[in-house]
Amino acid sequence: MNRPPNISDPLVLFMPSGKRGRFPRGTSVLDAARELGVYVESVCGGRATCGRCQIEVQEGSFAKHKIVSSNDHISAVGPKEQRYVDKRGLPEGRRLSCSATIQGDLVVDVPQDTVVNAQVIRKAAIDRIIERNPAVQLCYVEVDPPDMHKPLGDLDRLKAMLDRDWGWDNLLVSQYLIPQVQGILRKGNWGVTAAIHRDLEASRPNIIALWPGLHNEAYGIACDIGSTTIAMHLVSLLSGRIIATSGAPNPQIRFGEDLMSRVSYVMMNPTGRAALTKAVRDAVTELTRKVCAEGGVDPNNVLDAVIVGNPIMHHLFLGIDPTELGQAPFALAVSGSVHTWADDLGLGINTGARIYMLPCIAGHVGADAAGAVLSEGPHRQDRMMLLVDVGTNAEIVLGNSERVVAASSPTGPAFEGAEISSGQRAAPGAIERVRIDPETLEPKYKVIGVDQWSDEPGFEKAAGTVGVTGICGSAIIEVVAEMYLAGIISEDGVIDGSLAAKSSRIEQSGRTWSYLLREGPQRILVTQNDVRAIQLAKAALYAGIKLLMEKQDIQEVDTICFAGAFGSFIDPKYAMVLGLIPDCDLAEVKAVGNAAGTGALMALLSRDYRREIEKTVRKIVKIETALEPHFQQLFVDAMAIPNKTDSFPKLAEAVKLPPRKLLGTGADGSSGPRRRSREERAARRSRDG
Amino acid sequence: MNRPPNISDPLVLFMPSGKRGRFPRGTSVLDAARELGVYVESVCGGRATCGRCQIEVQEGSFAKHKIVSSNDHISAVGPKEQRYVDKRGLPEGRRLSCSATIQGDLVVDVPQDTVVNAQVIRKAAIDRIIERNPAVQLCYVEVDPPDMHKPLGDLDRLKAMLDRDWGWDNLLVSQYLIPQVQGILRKGNWGVTAAIHRDLEASRPNIIALWPGLHNEAYGIACDIGSTTIAMHLVSLLSGRIIATSGAPNPQIRFGEDLMSRVSYVMMNPTGRAALTKAVRDAVTELTRKVCAEGGVDPNNVLDAVIVGNPIMHHLFLGIDPTELGQAPFALAVSGSVHTWADDLGLGINTGARIYMLPCIAGHVGADAAGAVLSEGPHRQDRMMLLVDVGTNAEIVLGNSERVVAASSPTGPAFEGAEISSGQRAAPGAIERVRIDPETLEPKYKVIGVDQWSDEPGFEKAAGTVGVTGICGSAIIEVVAEMYLAGIISEDGVIDGSLAAKSSRIEQSGRTWSYLLREGPQRILVTQNDVRAIQLAKAALYAGIKLLMEKQDIQEVDTICFAGAFGSFIDPKYAMVLGLIPDCDLAEVKAVGNAAGTGALMALLSRDYRREIEKTVRKIVKIETALEPHFQQLFVDAMAIPNKTDSFPKLAEAVKLPPRKLLGTGADGSSGPRRRSREERAARRSRDG
Repeated sequence: MNRPPNISDPLVLFMPSGKRGRFPRGTSVLDAARELGVYVESVCGGRATCGRCQIEVQEGSFAKHKIVSSNDHISAVGPKEQRYVDKRGLPEGRRLSCSATIQGDLVVDVPQDTVVNAQVIRKAAIDRIIERNPAVQLCYVEVDPPDMHKPLGDLDRLKAMLDRDWGWDNLLVSQYLIPQVQGILRKGNWGVTAAIHRDLEASRPNIIALWPGLHNEAYGIACDIGSTTIAMHLVSLLSGRIIATSGAPNPQIRFGEDLMSRVSYVMMNPTGRAALTKAVRDAVTELTRKVCAEGGVDPNNVLDAVIVGNPIMHHLFLGIDPTELGQAPFALAVSGSVHTWADDLGLGINTGARIYMLPCIAGHVGADAAGAVLSEGPHRQDRMMLLVDVGTNAEIVLGNSERVVAASSPTGPAFEGAEISSGQRAAPGAIERVRIDPETLEPKYKVIGVDQWSDEPGFEKAAGTVGVTGICGSAIIEVVAEMYLAGIISEDGVIDGSLAAKSSRIEQSGRTWSYLLREGPQRILVTQNDVRAIQLAKAALYAGIKLLMEKQDIQEVDTICFAGAFGSFIDPKYAMVLGLIPDCDLAEVKAVGNAAGTGALMALLSRDYRREIEKTVRKIVKIETALEPHFQQLFVDAMAIPNKTDSFPKLAEAVKLPPRKLLGTGADGSSGPRRRSREERAARRSRDG
Repeated sequence: MNRPPNISDPLVLFMPSGKRGRFPRGTSVLDAARELGVYVESVCGGRATCGRCQIEVQEGSFAKHKIVSSNDHISAVGPKEQRYVDKRGLPEGRRLSCSATIQGDLVVDVPQDTVVNAQVIRKAAIDRIIERNPAVQLCYVEVDPPDMHKPLGDLDRLKAMLDRDWGWDNLLVSQYLIPQVQGILRKGNWGVTAAIHRDLEASRPNIIALWPGLHNEAYGIACDIGSTTIAMHLVSLLSGRIIATSGAPNPQIRFGEDLMSRVSYVMMNPTGRAALTKAVRDAVTELTRKVCAEGGVDPNNVLDAVIVGNPIMHHLFLGIDPTELGQAPFALAVSGSVHTWADDLGLGINTGARIYMLPCIAGHVGADAAGAVLSEGPHRQDRMMLLVDVGTNAEIVLGNSERVVAASSPTGPAFEGAEISSGQRAAPGAIERVRIDPETLEPKYKVIGVDQWSDEPGFEKAAGTVGVTGICGSAIIEVVAEMYLAGIISEDGVIDGSLAAKSSRIEQSGRTWSYLLREGPQRILVTQNDVRAIQLAKAALYAGIKLLMEKQDIQEVDTICFAGAFGSFIDPKYAMVLGLIPDCDLAEVKAVGNAAGTGALMALLSRDYRREIEKTVRKIVKIETALEPHFQQLFVDAMAIPNKTDSFPKLAEAVKLPPRKLLGTGADGSSGPRRRSREERAARRSRDG
């Protein structure tokens, strides 16, 4: 495009971004896309050899856009493109945008499969299409051979060509490559592909890898380091497609089941920090090897990584002693995003590969919560979103485009089945669903690995194979909620011993009572202590949420997202019956899976998301529950089922149950006080800071 | 300074830079210096604790500058400054510029000892004072303790304070520091000193080291890696002073005496490159340890390093296979300046320390030549300077502020005493000076380690102790030149056998003749082959110089600088008699010592010099002698002594010798053709490109 466009030039509309512009006839579609900032990958620099820049012309009359688009409006396949088609083939209707030129009005489709995978779209398409903008770009160049008249070094001539052909000036080069440049240039007969990493605008782009000839593969990993499980996606940075997804247990478990016991291990053992760091790095390395093997990808082609994790996982991965996070004031060593090198951490991917770690929000609200925020986007919408990730600590985020607040609350391990007499991890033999008949107080339940419910024919035979060994986290919520709905426990959480007269399932255990969920040689009881443990955990969660609602000055939330494994298995209805979460339209309560990992994936595919979450995290108002005198009262109120002061009218309507049980035990039982005006809320906020 | 200055404000003049400006009364002298870009070191950030920002007021009336300066015009010593004086003391007349404020007109001296050491001034003060601007700066800050209400990480609060107090925004941090930040902050009770490295403008500044409390030491090393010797300065980056200087043999010598034999070693041995790289890195590491021990400096306080060396040393130090440099087209792997990390190369200094390597000029004209250019500054002056560094290859630079050209010429090892029958390194027992009586042909000589000349009483006794074992490089030049001046050899370099009749020192050896320099049991002869070897070496050097003079279109040079050890020992007169260098006023021929090392030192003390030499090297016109068809003729002409076509009128006048011998054997013997006009020269240049 040598002259500015004018009104008689063809109009080109790119889908799905909707970006449009006029371009002189003969402009390549790739140049037009670049001019408009539409991301179309290209490695070969317009030589029609890499095949990455495929597009499709949508034929037809697009009245809304006043465009009639036709394949007649794009140049015929020329010799270079034909050579590619003959050699590699192109799907029906596809063209190489570097070779195809604009000859008339066009609606150009940048195929979805090369934009981003479907899963990510589901998560993030709340308000927009993901535009890819990865931190790593592959650039093929043909370098001048050495010339004694102009004795520029091989690396210097490579840089000059990356500037001329791709516009990269001021390139730095990774130290490890310097001794390799000459050999690679000669092996490629002066044609080489450079991987350029640029992330922050203020930082110089960097040649991080170099291959002889045209190199057409670049991958990244997005990794969520959980205390229990490490989850990883392997993604093509060129197509945006997820190549493989896998998980592995966090081997740090052998040093301590929960986070605080691992911090204790570090405090007690001089080599503890090093051992925990090595364990997690080795596990990430091994998982990387695994996803690469599954995807048939050479680990040397993995050039970028995005890592999230809670603050303790984040710190241990970076080799930082987490002791400060185990005690007030819970000081993070680093809260901002971290840019580092895979090689320093020994991940076994390309020597030049980079690592980006999302920012941490606060001492107990980590980069995993930041990832979940990036994925679910409370800051991108006007509705008030509650985002909860339940673990030993619950990370709680509440907000909308106006303001986001965050806190953590010490729920303890009860929700994960620890501290529960018959609690166990979700595994074959664990009870995962429970119903109790309010009349007879008889239960029925479902067991992982058995198709039938316990009251269906064939259950005992099938259960005999796997065994019925305990109750997993999701079923603990259900059984306590069902006990409440059946009247076995009171609002205060006390098992009503008088019902022993009515049902033999109410059993005395010392001075308290239990509910016999399963009879037989391996009896499964829900004890008064179990109910208490759940009450304490749910009270901590609810009090944290309530505190944030007060900070936002709202009485109800519009939507609730449960992130993490716990959220995927529990039934939102029972979570609400028990009072884990506030009243909400049940259709608006959803499990969002590993949202932290999805956020990492988004940051891997576009550095725009990195800037977005950095900016968002800086603006998030952090609430430290330990510093809030009011928190204790909220906690006490939340010990009641579902809550001492709050009512749950939406839930009551949805589950068609007697309103008494779900309208709270508040003095008046009214369905929620009036909402404050916007002005009143703003005034309160300026007080809170 | 909260308001813009006006004409009634005091005038402050900083010496020696001569920078001046008006500042409101009460402005600290340090702030005024910074405002004007005058480099005054300060580590503590104006807390009057580091003592680095010392200045002196010059008292008196400075008519030229229309200033009357007086110590009454500076504020009295306040409590903070007094506390420093009481604790550490200040030299008479010195003030801390962070505490002293401007109260009237002032001439302020930034003391020379804190600007730069005397040696560097001698080299570089040709046209200006060195303004220091090191790449590393120490910055003390007091960081806010962690705050649960604003859970910014420790590192993030450190960065914020470095921004607030020192203006560093956008700081990166070295990976290795991330796990250390918390401990250092707590050890310093939230007061820490950060070392900030910033070099290129387009690159983000970086925290490379961190100490608890006020840390007042920062050093750098400037290192010249020669094929034979490695030379190093240890310099305080805060005061600019040289703390220690030392040298060590290059251990690569065991793999090959000269450069090409080391390249051959790499080509022949699969592990050759690694062995040579390890040898030179180990030697640099050991030498660093040595200068630190001599200077009483903790190697952890060495934060920056500048390295120069010829292309093969440069490449091997970086771990680059030098094979390409051993054969046409002599392709450098990298010619531009290199920024890298000391830790990657294992130098044993601070983990965060950086290394800067000066650019290479061409395949045989290395970063050492660039260092010499930076030191001697042909590009900074109008006179035509010839800068020669003689080794196995002579690196030759010729130019002035208009244009600089450079080449290398394959002199071979003869000048270093190799290929000479009695040649040896400069060591006790080596003949270092020679005179021959033109009438009797009797020699006298001086031997290293013996005070007397050979014709003085007591010589033989003293010589008996050390032995007289050979001729060192400088004496080889002298003996051949003296043989020529005495008529023993002709212009063509042939030993005149007919003189055997006149002196028994002329001896027949087969079909040629020799000159007997020393009789006795260990006879020292100068053979016809020795003369030939010197002729070949000097012809190569002279032809290279002549080629550059033709490229510059000049017939004479204004000044000649001999860099390196060879230049320090030879007598310029004999170099000119033999025709190593063109005719020049002898007073303008000087040895500049290790100019490459001085250039490295300058680049260590100021990143402005880094930019200067990068820009200069890009503009230097590189001449490859192998590609110049004319070079062969120049070489043949230069075999004659002193030269077949050129005359040496200035030398003839200076040494008062028969003009025939020094006016060349050219057809007309005239003392140089007319100089071409500036226009003619410009026209020729545009042809040469």
